[in-house]
Amino acid sequence: MTLGRTQATSYADKARLPAKPGANPPAVILVEPQLGENIGTTARAMMNCGLNDLRLVDPKEDWLSEKARGASSGADAILEKAQKFTKVEDAIADLECVYATTARRREMVKTVMTARAAAGDMRTRGAAAQRLGLLFGRERIGLTNHELGLANVLVEVPMNPEHSSLNLAQAVLVVGYEWFQAGYDGPDAVTTYNKTMPVTKELLQELFDHLEEELDLCGFLRNDEKRPSMVVNIRNMLQRAELTVQEVRTLHGIIKELRYGRREDRPKRQPGYKVDKV
Amino acid sequence: MTLGRTQATSYADKARLPAKPGANPPAVILVEPQLGENIGTTARAMMNCGLNDLRLVDPKEDWLSEKARGASSGADAILEKAQKFTKVEDAIADLECVYATTARRREMVKTVMTARAAAGDMRTRGAAAQRLGLLFGRERIGLTNHELGLANVLVEVPMNPEHSSLNLAQAVLVVGYEWFQAGYDGPDAVTTYNKTMPVTKELLQELFDHLEEELDLCGFLRNDEKRPSMVVNIRNMLQRAELTVQEVRTLHGIIKELRYGRREDRPKRQPGYKVDKV
Repeated sequence: MTLGRTQATSYADKARLPAKPGANPPAVILVEPQLGENIGTTARAMMNCGLNDLRLVDPKEDWLSEKARGASSGADAILEKAQKFTKVEDAIADLECVYATTARRREMVKTVMTARAAAGDMRTRGAAAQRLGLLFGRERIGLTNHELGLANVLVEVPMNPEHSSLNLAQAVLVVGYEWFQAGYDGPDAVTTYNKTMPVTKELLQELFDHLEEELDLCGFLRNDEKRPSMVVNIRNMLQRAELTVQEVRTLHGIIKELRYGRREDRPKRQPGYKVDKV
Repeated sequence: MTLGRTQATSYADKARLPAKPGANPPAVILVEPQLGENIGTTARAMMNCGLNDLRLVDPKEDWLSEKARGASSGADAILEKAQKFTKVEDAIADLECVYATTARRREMVKTVMTARAAAGDMRTRGAAAQRLGLLFGRERIGLTNHELGLANVLVEVPMNPEHSSLNLAQAVLVVGYEWFQAGYDGPDAVTTYNKTMPVTKELLQELFDHLEEELDLCGFLRNDEKRPSMVVNIRNMLQRAELTVQEVRTLHGIIKELRYGRREDRPKRQPGYKVDKV
């Protein structure tokens, strides 16, 4: 595992990995979006990522149509608050740093960042209270060189070079997702314990003792030469399972019952029967 | 800027940020997908991320319909190679580690990773030649507890807790995107230089000298007390722009021409006119 941080949450932790959008989310500026449906799916992706300021430059379809609202899957609030502009210059006038997404390089001197690097840059600038914007181009032809000249930084998403094109909402989702992750300060992994907890080494040793006693009695460990390595292998297997207190109890029960196998003389099961008392 | 690595590429670098999918991509297993269109958009997202092994457990619509193919935007090859199974157990039989995506926690003892942590884990296991799978549930109800019991690890995507639901293809895109990024070894940012290069400090000093000489002559720097700090401020502004050789030439030209302003006695412009000779 390559986890930077891991954290065990005790008992019944049913919450999701904690996440909060964070301060100063960038505005999303769509230049001449062709389809209301794409504006709707963009709004949905924005809401997934904690973005809320949608700006539309000369949209070609109504962004409050039933189709657009349906595609937004409940992100109507973002559509209703969306602002319309006639020029990119007006849509970004109040912003201080603008990132333009591009699928291909242009003949210009410009810094190009990955979406992840841009997300870190946005968080740094956002922490300094800068007002930020993400500029997305037309579905088919993207942004013009004139429009790129209005941006501070270009953003590229590293993708399979043989099939790198993302649709509009997917591009917004990936860049917004990276912005959200850059502010995520929860654990990389948790183990959920449902009303139980990890077993202590003392309780695990009791399980080893119980199992090995029965394995000696039934003859599984009869080879004295091999016995030490067989015991270590079985213990390693049980260590790797990272057992809980409840699971160790279950395994004690399995060992107690299993030792009778299918023999005719195995104890009869009655309600309230305790195998310990036999 | 929070970049881990930056790299300047010299001259005309028109290539994209270098990216390659990498070895041992995980299979994508969709459990009872309802819509052919969703299978198509999943195939598109897979191809974006360098994934190619699609497995369908009891799909409810044809994944080779015109609708599915259209939604795949050119990822037909993945649809055509997709395998159909009747049970999840059969679909994952040849795999060694399975990651199941979930939107909500269950009453079970299980490790839950973020998509990013799972991507790192997949790369570690993939480097050891393990065969991996990503299990995605039904569009509306996800995976059953029985199905989660077949997986090694659960994966959650940290998203805005007030609107965290992703559609099927978006979930595949985000998890696949993270897998792709975990194998990305290109630079976080590059500056593209179109047949030019960053200016040396010697050439920049010549620009400072030229500008400050003209600013002394025109009277802009006439306040002796303020002159030193004004000069430092102007130099800082020009440093921050990270000028290229071509841009410094352009600025020399602007200074030479601008000193004549709108005055009646400014030199007449002729073809081949060189301001230096005036």
